[in-house]
Amino acid sequence: MLHSKLIHPESIVVVGGSDNIHSPGGRVLKNLLDHQFEGDLFVVNPKQDMVQGVRSYNDINDLPEVDLAIIAIAAKYVVEAVRVLTQKKNTKGFIIFSAGFSEKDEAGALLEKEIVKLLDKAGGSFLGPNNIGMINKHYAGVFTTPIPKLDEKGVDLISGSGATAVFIIEAAQSFGLTFSSVYTVGNSAQIGVEEILEYLDHSFEKGVSSKVKLLYIESIKDPLKFLRHTTSLIAKGCKIAAIKAGSSEEGNRAASSHTGAIANSDVFVDTLFKKAGIIRCFGRNELITVAGILQQKETAGKNIAIITHAGGPAVMLTDVLSNNGLKIPHIEGKESEALLDQLFDGSSVSNPIDFLATGNAGQLKAILEVCESSPRIDAMAVIFGSPGLTAVDDVYQVLNERIKSSEKPIYAVLPSVVNVKDEIQVFLKKGNIAFQDEVLFGQALAKVYNHASVSIKTENPDPKFSTEIRKLIDALPDGYMPTEAAVTLLETAGVKFAVPLQVKNEAKLNYFANTVIFPVVLKVEGPLHKSDVGGVILNVSNKSELHDGFHKLMQIEGATSVMIQPMIKGKEIFIGAKKETNYPHVILCGLGGIFVEVLKDISASMIPVSEEEALKMITDLKAAPILKGIRGQASINIKLFAETIVKISDLLTLVPEIAELDLNPLMASEKDLTAVDVRIRLERSVKKLQPNETNEFV
Amino acid sequence: MLHSKLIHPESIVVVGGSDNIHSPGGRVLKNLLDHQFEGDLFVVNPKQDMVQGVRSYNDINDLPEVDLAIIAIAAKYVVEAVRVLTQKKNTKGFIIFSAGFSEKDEAGALLEKEIVKLLDKAGGSFLGPNNIGMINKHYAGVFTTPIPKLDEKGVDLISGSGATAVFIIEAAQSFGLTFSSVYTVGNSAQIGVEEILEYLDHSFEKGVSSKVKLLYIESIKDPLKFLRHTTSLIAKGCKIAAIKAGSSEEGNRAASSHTGAIANSDVFVDTLFKKAGIIRCFGRNELITVAGILQQKETAGKNIAIITHAGGPAVMLTDVLSNNGLKIPHIEGKESEALLDQLFDGSSVSNPIDFLATGNAGQLKAILEVCESSPRIDAMAVIFGSPGLTAVDDVYQVLNERIKSSEKPIYAVLPSVVNVKDEIQVFLKKGNIAFQDEVLFGQALAKVYNHASVSIKTENPDPKFSTEIRKLIDALPDGYMPTEAAVTLLETAGVKFAVPLQVKNEAKLNYFANTVIFPVVLKVEGPLHKSDVGGVILNVSNKSELHDGFHKLMQIEGATSVMIQPMIKGKEIFIGAKKETNYPHVILCGLGGIFVEVLKDISASMIPVSEEEALKMITDLKAAPILKGIRGQASINIKLFAETIVKISDLLTLVPEIAELDLNPLMASEKDLTAVDVRIRLERSVKKLQPNETNEFV
Repeated sequence: MLHSKLIHPESIVVVGGSDNIHSPGGRVLKNLLDHQFEGDLFVVNPKQDMVQGVRSYNDINDLPEVDLAIIAIAAKYVVEAVRVLTQKKNTKGFIIFSAGFSEKDEAGALLEKEIVKLLDKAGGSFLGPNNIGMINKHYAGVFTTPIPKLDEKGVDLISGSGATAVFIIEAAQSFGLTFSSVYTVGNSAQIGVEEILEYLDHSFEKGVSSKVKLLYIESIKDPLKFLRHTTSLIAKGCKIAAIKAGSSEEGNRAASSHTGAIANSDVFVDTLFKKAGIIRCFGRNELITVAGILQQKETAGKNIAIITHAGGPAVMLTDVLSNNGLKIPHIEGKESEALLDQLFDGSSVSNPIDFLATGNAGQLKAILEVCESSPRIDAMAVIFGSPGLTAVDDVYQVLNERIKSSEKPIYAVLPSVVNVKDEIQVFLKKGNIAFQDEVLFGQALAKVYNHASVSIKTENPDPKFSTEIRKLIDALPDGYMPTEAAVTLLETAGVKFAVPLQVKNEAKLNYFANTVIFPVVLKVEGPLHKSDVGGVILNVSNKSELHDGFHKLMQIEGATSVMIQPMIKGKEIFIGAKKETNYPHVILCGLGGIFVEVLKDISASMIPVSEEEALKMITDLKAAPILKGIRGQASINIKLFAETIVKISDLLTLVPEIAELDLNPLMASEKDLTAVDVRIRLERSVKKLQPNETNEFV
Repeated sequence: MLHSKLIHPESIVVVGGSDNIHSPGGRVLKNLLDHQFEGDLFVVNPKQDMVQGVRSYNDINDLPEVDLAIIAIAAKYVVEAVRVLTQKKNTKGFIIFSAGFSEKDEAGALLEKEIVKLLDKAGGSFLGPNNIGMINKHYAGVFTTPIPKLDEKGVDLISGSGATAVFIIEAAQSFGLTFSSVYTVGNSAQIGVEEILEYLDHSFEKGVSSKVKLLYIESIKDPLKFLRHTTSLIAKGCKIAAIKAGSSEEGNRAASSHTGAIANSDVFVDTLFKKAGIIRCFGRNELITVAGILQQKETAGKNIAIITHAGGPAVMLTDVLSNNGLKIPHIEGKESEALLDQLFDGSSVSNPIDFLATGNAGQLKAILEVCESSPRIDAMAVIFGSPGLTAVDDVYQVLNERIKSSEKPIYAVLPSVVNVKDEIQVFLKKGNIAFQDEVLFGQALAKVYNHASVSIKTENPDPKFSTEIRKLIDALPDGYMPTEAAVTLLETAGVKFAVPLQVKNEAKLNYFANTVIFPVVLKVEGPLHKSDVGGVILNVSNKSELHDGFHKLMQIEGATSVMIQPMIKGKEIFIGAKKETNYPHVILCGLGGIFVEVLKDISASMIPVSEEEALKMITDLKAAPILKGIRGQASINIKLFAETIVKISDLLTLVPEIAELDLNPLMASEKDLTAVDVRIRLERSVKKLQPNETNEFV
């Protein structure tokens, strides 16, 4: 948890403060002064007694007690400064700008650890090192510019990169986006994105705290903590949009070179965000545009009225919205007539509502009134620029008034960034958001409106199986589980399996030959990739074929036995799972064969997976219509598919040491779902989390 | 062809010019004066003798001869003004701002036609009505602001929407994009986008004319003319990027309400652009970003070095580039050592090259020099902003110098739009382009670099078949072709068909029963959708099944006969074609069945399709690996698939009255490709184009 004195210090010392405002120590002092820090302010500077009009101490030991230290001196002096401050000055909050720690080399990493140790001992909190600081309503503790417009209802920004935070703040200015707080975590030595989220979660006050959080992340060290607090914040009514950079292999390399962070594969990040309900973004412009949308009223549906005096942008916006699943419903009947009465000849009210280049403020007001009261419209997007002939103040004033009074969201797209630059500034100063590019706005709007939150799983796996399963697992070493054990595990977890008969010799073969019901399938045991070595024979329909098949398979290199299974009809489907250190398992599903291998048509979710989530995984597959039955073919039992995913999820929750699991294929018919092949790999080093931890966030 | 006096008039009259610069007539006069039109300038204004210092005539009849008229008076007076100017004043160029013509109502459409008639008779050219005018180096004939920075090497912009042109010019300013000319076509009464392209094509001078053309289009009235001139411009070395708005159904509605344009389905636009080699964009920001990239040096490959002092944006750019097929190659060995020598400790040179927040101009120069001479790097993207501490002029100066001297393209991403606003302006004034958002830049870069131009087809279909095919077609009415005729048509075109035997009665059935080679397929003739009525029986393997099947099928409502076909093994593939008025045919291909119906995995090209294009269509399919053979399955003969597509293309070129064609399925094996079902619909009203016209652009 963040120490309250990092958030709200009554006194601050800038260690390394100077008169040079082009240095971090000089600039942060200027920022603190310019943005009227209301507590006591001190400087430590060995050569001056007064810095920028602030009392400066030549020796850190001479300082009075101080709540927060902002440190801008060379890395090698930092440990000693922290020692004095924690041990003698009762300092509990630290922001360390200095670079030259773990991001540089081993020696730096050792210094960093030393600082953490001192802070942990003192019960203090420390942001950095190698960051640009933080900003909130109490103080502007950064050495960069610009300081954004602060507003309790503005967004909270947490950034793993200082420069990115600066560029986000800069780009946000032209949108009118305001900030409630900005945190940069640098090397995250003690406080990372997760800890800031924890603080925002615990300190959240309904009706008071900002509801929109923006994250720029390069690594997530503690996915469960991250999940716990993002989920909790969203449950409290917050919206979170985040960039996780390093999603590509090369990007990961770049992220690693940047902050020495541990790389995470992208599917884990993606399912983690989905689980929490985070809107995933990929660039600064997108993040800001999404934030601008989230900062406005919430909408009840997806029916958008597009209102404009300029056709082209309205057509482009219509394209991007309707191509992404939003509706631009026709306006007809009385509503349409009422409108046409008030507009100039040639106006179009069918939606987009085009009130022509000559359209005026009064007409915009009339149009918005009709849309506000129309049950067919959920939100309005107004595109209004200027060819440079006439003033638009009155139009923007109407827009400002309706945005504030309407119960529905009204989005302002103001494209004339040159012609009516000043009028846009006036509009923004009234607390509004303005978007510049209708298509970038439209893409973000579709992303926000299509962002579905499914209810997350709350039940714990049935405990009556857990002892049995634990006993089974604990008896096995790391590596691939023997088929027999894997089948037992699945059956205990409630998954139906076409139990194979193991045959090692002629005698056993002869015995089974008289009891099995043909046709059957033969599979070699021993080689890992059976299909690749010709180790599977389908549709074996009589005793003689059974004998031939057995002998053929036993000749394959590495063959130890042959499995006989009933031939099961149905569609091949697939359930798989994977675990990476620190992350809960990700479950994957899809149709088997080419759908998975060629078309990469796979859905993924992080455990625990509820039945609702499992159903969404299935319907999200591009091949979903095939499962539902097309061209007269029978459907598979989709509910049973979903239930099986949930059972696997429960199993994984109980057995965190499963590193990989493959049920490929399962045979699915209208009534039944039967696994016919399984591979499970145990690896205790990926376990890390106890089952109760996995579920801690629920 | 555009009249030279519209492009380069020696005298201009503004009909409706006034002192009110908030009116179109007043503002265009001010623009002409401000941007120093060098010829004679007149005004027609019934009430004044002098307007903005320009000689004004009260009566249009009193004017001297004048090359170009810009008309800004009410619609009802326009026809008379045009009559006087064309008939008495030898005026050949017209720009008509006035609205109230075909976009408004029938009466307006009649007025518009009248004007076109007068202009055609006089051999003049007329832009509009209902537009904002045009700008080139000779005059600023628009009533809007801002007038962009003009430059012979800037982009040419043609816009179907005046407001969109204004907003593009405004947004382009912050990128530093300059313009060579801007044309807005309004209602396109006489001159549309196609005619401007024709002019740019014919007047193109290598080494002199601008090489980048941008289009904003809401409708394409004459696709072949469009194709001819875009193809020709691109062959001359130009790059064209275009937005075709109205790509969604709703967008089409919006486009229609806007300019009364005829809607085109999106696949026709898409294949038309692909055929011409146009880079398709979907929004203003994207169009400008693409233009900014096209305005720089061309690159030899896809290996990008990302150079930055700020990690975050470099990671995001790496992600977007490598997720879109570009390479960020490692820099190793000598190159890497040479660099590390010159950079500060902690810098990373593996690519992204991160030379830290403290990185300076000299270091940037060293990095760029290494990249310029490295055979592993084709282009460099430099991301350099400022946290607000230090000046960046020297860095941007180095960037400016290397951009100009390097043989490889260097892209500047300058994200600090607030902190170093002035330095960015200085950088732009030197003729550079600056991108603001690294991810929007990266998306556009990937789009440009991945834009493939395949060689377009040049041969004409073999003429020896044309007489035969023509005779066959001319003998048939509109509607679905009888199967027999369709099969003959395909065979004449060189497509192999599993020729069906038609059986209408028991006698014929008995005769065939003794000659066919089992197994066979039975298909009912009569009903259009055979499968839906149970009209197909597969795998009929003996005489008795043949009899049963025949009788069963003949009982289906509408059955007229039964076709017997050999059972052909192989993968089902599909070739289809469609024609819309004015457009050449579009050919579609894919794997049959679910791949087309459920997964919508289809490739499309506009005819004529070359073998290279056909191969690209096939490899572009998501299911392509299945055709090439996976998991030990045999591949199909892909070359034969491509050749068959070309044969169908040739056939369609010869028979423009084919409105729809379906070869579904064709059975493809390793050696063979055989059509087993065909449906062709003739519709003479879609013909419109003669075969030689279809090929006119080649």
